[in-house]
Amino acid sequence: MIRNILVIILLAGCIFGDEYHSHHKPSTVKKSSNVINEQERTTKYWVNQAQDTLKKIVNKKLNTKNATNIIMFLGDGMSFSTVAATRMYLGGEEKKLSFEEFEYTGFSKTYCVDAQVADSACTSTAYLNGIKTNYEVIGLNAKATVADCDAQLDDKIWTESILRWAQKSHKATGIVTTTRITHASPAGGYAHVSERDWENDHEVSLSGCDPNKVDDIAEQLVYNVEGANFKVILGGGRANFINQTEKDEENNNGKRHDGKNLINVWKNERSKLGKAEYIWNKQQLDSLDYNNTEYLLGLFEHDHMRYNMDVKAQGLVLEPSLSDMTSAAIKMLQKEDGGYFLFIEGGMIDQAHHYNYAQISLDETKEFSDAIALARKMTNEEDTLIVVTADHSHVFTYSGYPERGSNIFGAVEVSDIDELPYATLSYANGPGFAHTFVDGKRVDPNTVGMDDPKFQYPATVPREKDTHGGEDVAVYASGPMAHLFSGNYEQNTIPLIMAYIMKIGPYAAEEKSASCAIMPVFMLLLSMLIINKLIK
Amino acid sequence: MIRNILVIILLAGCIFGDEYHSHHKPSTVKKSSNVINEQERTTKYWVNQAQDTLKKIVNKKLNTKNATNIIMFLGDGMSFSTVAATRMYLGGEEKKLSFEEFEYTGFSKTYCVDAQVADSACTSTAYLNGIKTNYEVIGLNAKATVADCDAQLDDKIWTESILRWAQKSHKATGIVTTTRITHASPAGGYAHVSERDWENDHEVSLSGCDPNKVDDIAEQLVYNVEGANFKVILGGGRANFINQTEKDEENNNGKRHDGKNLINVWKNERSKLGKAEYIWNKQQLDSLDYNNTEYLLGLFEHDHMRYNMDVKAQGLVLEPSLSDMTSAAIKMLQKEDGGYFLFIEGGMIDQAHHYNYAQISLDETKEFSDAIALARKMTNEEDTLIVVTADHSHVFTYSGYPERGSNIFGAVEVSDIDELPYATLSYANGPGFAHTFVDGKRVDPNTVGMDDPKFQYPATVPREKDTHGGEDVAVYASGPMAHLFSGNYEQNTIPLIMAYIMKIGPYAAEEKSASCAIMPVFMLLLSMLIINKLIK
Repeated sequence: MIRNILVIILLAGCIFGDEYHSHHKPSTVKKSSNVINEQERTTKYWVNQAQDTLKKIVNKKLNTKNATNIIMFLGDGMSFSTVAATRMYLGGEEKKLSFEEFEYTGFSKTYCVDAQVADSACTSTAYLNGIKTNYEVIGLNAKATVADCDAQLDDKIWTESILRWAQKSHKATGIVTTTRITHASPAGGYAHVSERDWENDHEVSLSGCDPNKVDDIAEQLVYNVEGANFKVILGGGRANFINQTEKDEENNNGKRHDGKNLINVWKNERSKLGKAEYIWNKQQLDSLDYNNTEYLLGLFEHDHMRYNMDVKAQGLVLEPSLSDMTSAAIKMLQKEDGGYFLFIEGGMIDQAHHYNYAQISLDETKEFSDAIALARKMTNEEDTLIVVTADHSHVFTYSGYPERGSNIFGAVEVSDIDELPYATLSYANGPGFAHTFVDGKRVDPNTVGMDDPKFQYPATVPREKDTHGGEDVAVYASGPMAHLFSGNYEQNTIPLIMAYIMKIGPYAAEEKSASCAIMPVFMLLLSMLIINKLIK
Repeated sequence: MIRNILVIILLAGCIFGDEYHSHHKPSTVKKSSNVINEQERTTKYWVNQAQDTLKKIVNKKLNTKNATNIIMFLGDGMSFSTVAATRMYLGGEEKKLSFEEFEYTGFSKTYCVDAQVADSACTSTAYLNGIKTNYEVIGLNAKATVADCDAQLDDKIWTESILRWAQKSHKATGIVTTTRITHASPAGGYAHVSERDWENDHEVSLSGCDPNKVDDIAEQLVYNVEGANFKVILGGGRANFINQTEKDEENNNGKRHDGKNLINVWKNERSKLGKAEYIWNKQQLDSLDYNNTEYLLGLFEHDHMRYNMDVKAQGLVLEPSLSDMTSAAIKMLQKEDGGYFLFIEGGMIDQAHHYNYAQISLDETKEFSDAIALARKMTNEEDTLIVVTADHSHVFTYSGYPERGSNIFGAVEVSDIDELPYATLSYANGPGFAHTFVDGKRVDPNTVGMDDPKFQYPATVPREKDTHGGEDVAVYASGPMAHLFSGNYEQNTIPLIMAYIMKIGPYAAEEKSASCAIMPVFMLLLSMLIINKLIK
């Protein structure tokens, strides 16, 4: 290859004999630091690397089959800078997260009907229901005003999720998250509320609505048709399912005021249809008898699940990882006939960013990447589409000009104005402001505890929580018709593309109408045959 | 379609008769603000919109031809947040920049051999030469230490640009930029220097190197084989071509110390090969006799070209726009036989960001978008590949939760901590810091001149110029084999993909070796024929 180029250079030297040449002479070349793989200093290394990549690109075969199974992975708040910074956390700029190996990529536009910068509720309605709606609204179109008690009583404005489309086409379905299972992202799969905070009846009351008329999200998960059909439900948030007077397995009080124990309701109701198992810790998950479990509800925390870093540091043996839950959910669904649609959220990426916990956010992104690697390993690229995306960005930046291989969590060069170092990672706003400026002066981030995994990275504007960001997020796809995800589209296009690939929802209708169209032709032929017989 | 869904819902109601139902009753729905297109409140609007997008995606035909022509557009520092914010500048979240209509998209990883966050020099070496190198180095592999006088004298470490590959395959070539033509991005197409600042001989001297041995970038453009072959060169930066004692057409002094007038050298040398035209203003560009011009050099400013906003506000009639230059360059190259490779940079996006001039940066992004729309219109998608990308990101964020349709240049809600409004757009660092904090206290951005087009947006860290960002940048492609740009790859893969599509550079070699392989077979057959004749 290189030899070929040299030959061409020599040949071209003859062809372009009348051209200008540099009058430089060769000399010895100095070397710089040793952090770098010396191979990278050569032309050959990069030419080979680029040609290998190109070979893979050129040789990739289009998979034009329909998908039997779809797993959608949602990295909540997983911006481009989050992904790039996580590569450093994995060991270097050249590393890839598991889903960065996926061959097809697109960009998703995240704004909502009344919001320039989105939240996880309206975006969940978009990427799971195909409809953009208002900020903080879930499963209703934008005729719903936020926190309007009556909005969800009008089922004409309900939207329908791709999980429901899958169920209607007799696909098994499930949801997994590291947040409360009633949190906005998973709720987009089954709930219809004008206020994402209505995770229990008490929250409904606090908004001045009547919880006897207005179902909260936990109730909807247990009673609504979508939730009732889920074969597997894994996440946190037990408190929204039990009464304030009750305690859960880990001695935390419930949050409900209506006296209901929705976990018991779930178990009783699902048991009418098949073997239903409720579990609350990792050990139960590990020893689950899959062959003897038809419905699985796992609620592993009273609130959001714990940060993986805390789980590891504190030895929290009761807490399953996102990979543990991913594996269990896939096993639960793989034994069903006819395929499945599974939604899995890495929800703590977003939670950590909100507190400017950059280290934790990158660790959660790594956990998310690991779960996707496992899912791709447990499934077949030929029949299982995996789509990975985020709901929105965060105001998280990856800055300065750090040297190759620098500690991503450290400080880079000093400012040429105030001569203090500044952190590579920072936020446009958030609680980290408190460590950024002390007595009105910017401080050296090294002096305020940057080594702590819960160091709150610098921010320009003080805010209890950082805000989301308004730019696009990435879409990565692998498996049947994954190539359809290339390009730039509104976020609500994503479930339509998935539905098209699985032939469910609006695209199940197409099949149906096609077979309906054959019927009259068949009837006509039959009639002609009978008439023919009769005439004879 | 909608009716089909309803039918299915009704049908499914029968099938899943034993499922749980919500006990909600319909009621009236309130409406919120009037800024929003009322259609967007309906389910139908979004279903139609998503289905239309999907139809386009599904119906797009693969163009598997090779490209006769390639135009590469580089938006310097054009991050994802820059693109998204520019949509607001165009009139709304739902708007698209011209290149966002391109059907194929990928992500480019921008780090350099010794830099976690890249500059425009090493990235230019990557996206134009296929080789990652060191920070501030252009057209040499990473064996070159930055500012090493001797490095560029060793042509073994020179890299070769795709413009050169195109020239070797008898394609016409050209470069266009809004910055100095000797600035890092275009220089990646023709120069080989270990220090991007060596735009003239004086800069070489200042680094302690001998300008008699070490060619500066302007000299290389005029003397090197790459530059000598360019049919069209349009941009700013006259000062690097003339002596400090000389004045240019607009009465600005040159910067050279060697007494050379490289514009005259260019004209004299190119005139030996064909009709060569040097121009310095828009009127000359507008009245150019294309049929009678074989080589075109246009230098429209002594330094970078002016910001489009300044051109418009100050009525600078001598300054062509990026679209003017794009049109001229395409006309110059279209009349050549055998196709062309054209590199066009929107370089002032980056310059404006460096000064935290968010308004100007978005305006320059709009200008860039307009130039691409024009290029796509002037060329045929069947034979001309257009690739749009950026070299690196900036630490520019699009934050808060502004309402739909909010002024992108304005302030959003007040902080829940200091109760002051904060700007939607801001930077992790840069000179805007001076307006962010006054006497150690954060100020309301509305009180410090946000209406001024040159308002420097808030920044967390004071810095003379903002820094670049470390996350990936987008790649958008349209035309022959544009689908090969989907996925996630190292930035240096881009020229290899283009070369593959045009069958130049390393991939011209493939063709050549294929025809070489036929030769021995031909010779063998010929010999057999002769032997056969002789025997007879």
